[in-house]
Amino acid sequence: MNFIKMQGLGNDFIFIIDNKNEFIDNEIEIAKKVCDRRFGIGADGLVIIRKSNIADAKMVIINSDGSRANMCGNAIRCFAKYLYEINSIDKSIISIETGDGIKNVELKTNNNKVELIKVNMGKASFSGKDIPLRNKKELINEKVKIEGKTYKLTTLLMGVPHTILINNNDEHTIEEGRIIEKYNLFIDGTNVNFIKIIDKKNIEVRTWERGAGATLACGTGCCASVVALKKLGLCDDKVKVKTLGGSLEVEVVNDEVYMIGAADFICKGELY
Amino acid sequence: MNFIKMQGLGNDFIFIIDNKNEFIDNEIEIAKKVCDRRFGIGADGLVIIRKSNIADAKMVIINSDGSRANMCGNAIRCFAKYLYEINSIDKSIISIETGDGIKNVELKTNNNKVELIKVNMGKASFSGKDIPLRNKKELINEKVKIEGKTYKLTTLLMGVPHTILINNNDEHTIEEGRIIEKYNLFIDGTNVNFIKIIDKKNIEVRTWERGAGATLACGTGCCASVVALKKLGLCDDKVKVKTLGGSLEVEVVNDEVYMIGAADFICKGELY
Repeated sequence: MNFIKMQGLGNDFIFIIDNKNEFIDNEIEIAKKVCDRRFGIGADGLVIIRKSNIADAKMVIINSDGSRANMCGNAIRCFAKYLYEINSIDKSIISIETGDGIKNVELKTNNNKVELIKVNMGKASFSGKDIPLRNKKELINEKVKIEGKTYKLTTLLMGVPHTILINNNDEHTIEEGRIIEKYNLFIDGTNVNFIKIIDKKNIEVRTWERGAGATLACGTGCCASVVALKKLGLCDDKVKVKTLGGSLEVEVVNDEVYMIGAADFICKGELY
Repeated sequence: MNFIKMQGLGNDFIFIIDNKNEFIDNEIEIAKKVCDRRFGIGADGLVIIRKSNIADAKMVIINSDGSRANMCGNAIRCFAKYLYEINSIDKSIISIETGDGIKNVELKTNNNKVELIKVNMGKASFSGKDIPLRNKKELINEKVKIEGKTYKLTTLLMGVPHTILINNNDEHTIEEGRIIEKYNLFIDGTNVNFIKIIDKKNIEVRTWERGAGATLACGTGCCASVVALKKLGLCDDKVKVKTLGGSLEVEVVNDEVYMIGAADFICKGELY
C-alpha cells in the first residue's frame, strides 16, 4: 500500500488513494495500524482520497483511535495540496466533499507548488444555545470564578465550542485549560485558547483541546480567537496567528471565517 | 533521501545507508528532523548503516533528541534483519561494529526471511562498584524503605543499572519506579523492572526507564530480570519474557546473556 505523509501546523496525516473503494471494509483497522507511532508509520489520522460524484474529490478522515472526523482544517489544506501537486488537479479553486458538506478551497500557487491554501471555515456563533451553555444566553468578556480563580472569558461555537482568554502578561498557564474545560457552564465542555495580543494584526495562541490537552496548534481555535477578539474590538479583519506548530492567517469577511495557511509533504513510501 | 522504518519490541528506528560518509557532518540534524513524530517520519532514533573495516557493517545510533547511543538491543536486531534481507549479507552470523565494540549476531532464517535474531548482550554484574551503589557491596533480595514504603530489591549492571522487584500480586504500580529510580543508594539512578513470575520459563516485565519513565519494553531490562531471577533460584536458564511491546527470549550460558527476538519492517520510502 502506497502512502504519503503530510502535516499542517504540526497536525500530521497519512494519505492513501482509494478509487476502487477497496479499503472501505477495513479502513478503521488500517487507520489504527498506520497511525500507530511505534508499530506503524505514525500520524494523528488517516486521510483517504476517494472519487466524488459532486466534487473534485472526497476526503475521509479517520483519527488514530479509529473514530471519524467530519472535517479538519489542517487536513483539508494538506488534501488540497495533494490534489494539486500529486493528482494534477489544475484549478485554483478545488471542491472537496467532506462529512461536513462540500468545501471550496482556494489555492495560491507558485511554480506548480501550492504555497498557501484558503479554506472557508463557516460562521461562528456566540449564542448560548449553539455552543451550548447551561442556562445562559451568551458569555462575552465576562468574569467567571472557577475553583477560586477569576477568569475573563468569551465563548463561541466555531465548529466546536471555543473559549478565549487574553493572557498578555503570562498570568495564566496552559494547564489551567484543564479546569476551564470542565467548568459546569459548558454543557459539552470547551476548548480553551490563551491569547497574547501583539498588535491588531498579530496574535499568538496556545490551545488547550477538550479531551486532548495542550496541542501544538488548533485550526478552529485560531479562527475562534480572531472572531472573538474582533467582537471585542481588539483586532482587525485579517490577523496573523502564531502557534507552536506554525503560523496561519485568519480573515473574516461578512461573518464568514477564512483560514489561510500552508501544508507540507514529509515523505512518501510503501507499507510492508 | 531513502529510508526504511523498523521496530523491535515497539522501539522504532529510521534506517538510512551512508556508504560515502556524506551525512556525517549533519547526522545529528538529520536525526532530529526525521525522528520528529509530527514534522518528520517519527521514530525513537536514526540508525545509520556505514561500511566497516573490521566487521560486516557499522551501526551508528542517534536518538531523537540528537544524543548518541553506543548500543541498543532492539536496534541491533533490526540492523541484522536489514543487512540480511535488504543488503543481502547471506550469513547466519553477522558481525556489527557498534560504539560498544563488535557484536556477533546470530540469525534464524526461514525462506530468506529473518525470523529471530540472537544477540550476545555481555555479562551482568551484581557488584556495588560496577552498578554503582553508594557505600554498599551489593543489593540482592534486600528490604529497602523508600519514602515510607518497603521494597524487596535486587540491583545489577546489565549495560546500565537495573533494579528488579517481584510484583506477582500487583501490589506495586509502575509509577513507583519514579521514586525508586532516584533513591539515594543508586549513584547514577536505576531502571526499575516490575516482574510477574508465571512459571520458571515465563515471566512478564514492565520497565520504568531512568529518565524516560514507563516504556513499552526495555531489552536490557528483560535480560537483567532473568539474570536476577536466576540468581534468586526463581527461573531457568532460558526464559520467555513478555512485555507490552512484544516478547523476547533471554538465555544465560556461562554467565553470557543472550537476547533472542524478532524485528519488523514497517515501511520504506523517500523523504521530501
